[in-house]
Amino acid sequence: MDQEARVAEPDEAISVDELQLAARNHGMPLEALRYDVTPVGLHYLLIHYDIPDVDPATWRLDIDGAVERPLSLDLPELRSRPSQTLRVTIECAGNGRARLLPRPISQPWLVEAVGTAEWTGAPLAPLLAECGLRPDAVELVLTGADHGTERGVEQDYQRGMRLDDVLAGDLLLAYEMNGQPLPPQHGAPVRVVAPGWYGMAHVKWLQHIEVSTTAFRGFQNATAYRIRQGDEAGEPVTRMRPRALVVPPGFPDFMTRERVVDTGTHALRGRAWSGAAAVVRVEVSVDAGRSWADAELDAATGRWDWVGWSYAWTADSRGSTEILCRATDAHGDVQPVEQPWNRQGMANNAVQRVPVRVR
Amino acid sequence: MDQEARVAEPDEAISVDELQLAARNHGMPLEALRYDVTPVGLHYLLIHYDIPDVDPATWRLDIDGAVERPLSLDLPELRSRPSQTLRVTIECAGNGRARLLPRPISQPWLVEAVGTAEWTGAPLAPLLAECGLRPDAVELVLTGADHGTERGVEQDYQRGMRLDDVLAGDLLLAYEMNGQPLPPQHGAPVRVVAPGWYGMAHVKWLQHIEVSTTAFRGFQNATAYRIRQGDEAGEPVTRMRPRALVVPPGFPDFMTRERVVDTGTHALRGRAWSGAAAVVRVEVSVDAGRSWADAELDAATGRWDWVGWSYAWTADSRGSTEILCRATDAHGDVQPVEQPWNRQGMANNAVQRVPVRVR
Repeated sequence: MDQEARVAEPDEAISVDELQLAARNHGMPLEALRYDVTPVGLHYLLIHYDIPDVDPATWRLDIDGAVERPLSLDLPELRSRPSQTLRVTIECAGNGRARLLPRPISQPWLVEAVGTAEWTGAPLAPLLAECGLRPDAVELVLTGADHGTERGVEQDYQRGMRLDDVLAGDLLLAYEMNGQPLPPQHGAPVRVVAPGWYGMAHVKWLQHIEVSTTAFRGFQNATAYRIRQGDEAGEPVTRMRPRALVVPPGFPDFMTRERVVDTGTHALRGRAWSGAAAVVRVEVSVDAGRSWADAELDAATGRWDWVGWSYAWTADSRGSTEILCRATDAHGDVQPVEQPWNRQGMANNAVQRVPVRVR
Repeated sequence: MDQEARVAEPDEAISVDELQLAARNHGMPLEALRYDVTPVGLHYLLIHYDIPDVDPATWRLDIDGAVERPLSLDLPELRSRPSQTLRVTIECAGNGRARLLPRPISQPWLVEAVGTAEWTGAPLAPLLAECGLRPDAVELVLTGADHGTERGVEQDYQRGMRLDDVLAGDLLLAYEMNGQPLPPQHGAPVRVVAPGWYGMAHVKWLQHIEVSTTAFRGFQNATAYRIRQGDEAGEPVTRMRPRALVVPPGFPDFMTRERVVDTGTHALRGRAWSGAAAVVRVEVSVDAGRSWADAELDAATGRWDWVGWSYAWTADSRGSTEILCRATDAHGDVQPVEQPWNRQGMANNAVQRVPVRVR
């Protein structure tokens, strides 16, 4: 069975298969960038198979494998552990995919697959310590309850994560989102939150953590979430690349979403994030990329959520233009204006372009 | 300015404009038909322009026009009125549009633009009585705070509704959804709920009700939400036509959403609704429409929400098939297997088809 997803022909428009994924898996409407914390229902969603019907009353989490003392917890037991609340921005690794040419055929995100929530749950590291990791443990295999086929491979959604990444991070087993029990579509009753990582690491409907002595070679690690040009192994998708987004100014046209603004000064606002290091700079172009100016960054509200930014745009000439913005993080990583192509459309952080008509 | 939306060429696939609408405006994942009341975030959403940023602290609703005593209410005043909670199914009038051939270019719904919520608010009829309707009053003009252009017409979203329809219905000015304050995307702080009607009548972010002595001729009534073949006036879109949907059985393929089930008996479950009259019959076909059998209807849970149904499917031969279902209401209106085409893709209630592979 061929495990490669298809790449569209150069002139091939969006298919019904892609559309039915877009109708299920929604982005965050960009005006929702106005909220520090994304309200439930506006946060992006990417569900590989179906939302499983997990009964919280009978749910259990098993932690086993290369541990001294396997652990099995029900929901009240997990909730009785010390809890932590983290504000975390999560972006889908496929965000921007549908802007690549040729277009890799999968969930056809444009630029909106992101959201920020306050996640409450039990930190994972103390639970692993309680189990007693064996010296040969190298990786966790996290298994969700969602089940389906993908490029011919029948599977429960599973992701491996290296133990050093787990222990260096602030991973949570989250049971609340924005102060409410997790909604079904965000992984009820319990999901992984892996701050700084693209969405594929935040396993929803978590049911099993196996501590493994070898690197996990399952579909989602070895095949799907990799940056590659062809059928070589490529590089794994890990932390979110820097990205800035702007709240589209003015008002939209229903069909084209082009914006209309009046001449005058407009307080542009947006958000920026990077999974690898703090965002240190956001630049804005109001002339379709010909020139750039620095935006003002708000004070950071945490390590793992987006930072706000603002820029006063004086729109003094009528006509059409494009607004662009780009982020730079403390590692010096800058968003590209044009994205290098990759076979599966992963981690495309090319700058957002907002068509605007000044009247 | 031409006020006609475009119709796609017969072989024209989905455009980026349509895709960006699909990324914003999401349907209800069909497995969420399992919930009597759709959890927030899974209910379908159709937002013509942007989600407006309405401050509940300064929000006011003005009721004026052909009344003896104009009324202006803030949110605490509206909340102090007697309240009612109704369970209401709402479907977008454009549901099914993207299945028409040729495809009218607009929000490209397939079959999933529906949801059921418990809406709490103040009944509208007593507020109108309080204002004292003048004898020449014939219609309400309901204005939301969302603003944009549509086919060249700049507008706040506005809908007219005939007074006799308003007074014969159970219209609410809703401020809660599923027991919580309305989320921004569903019209916070206050929206109209017009039980039985397609979604366009349920004006979100309500700010003004004008009682009018003439029929409203605005864009959303006179141009957009009409069933017509060309540029004739056509018929207005009003109440939801009957429709049944089935929870897709088994598990899906990520990309095609085709289902896989094992041979054996499967308890098919679904929902059905009609805005004009109660659903009295649901039929199921498990052989792609060649034969039909009656499903069993659950007891109705209310007048305005969907009714559950079930059907035991014995899948005894391997291979591919399609599952179809269709509803009939008390007026004798039956869902069509093939939908007659209309220019704007309105009220397409052609039966759902679920491709399934039995293994």
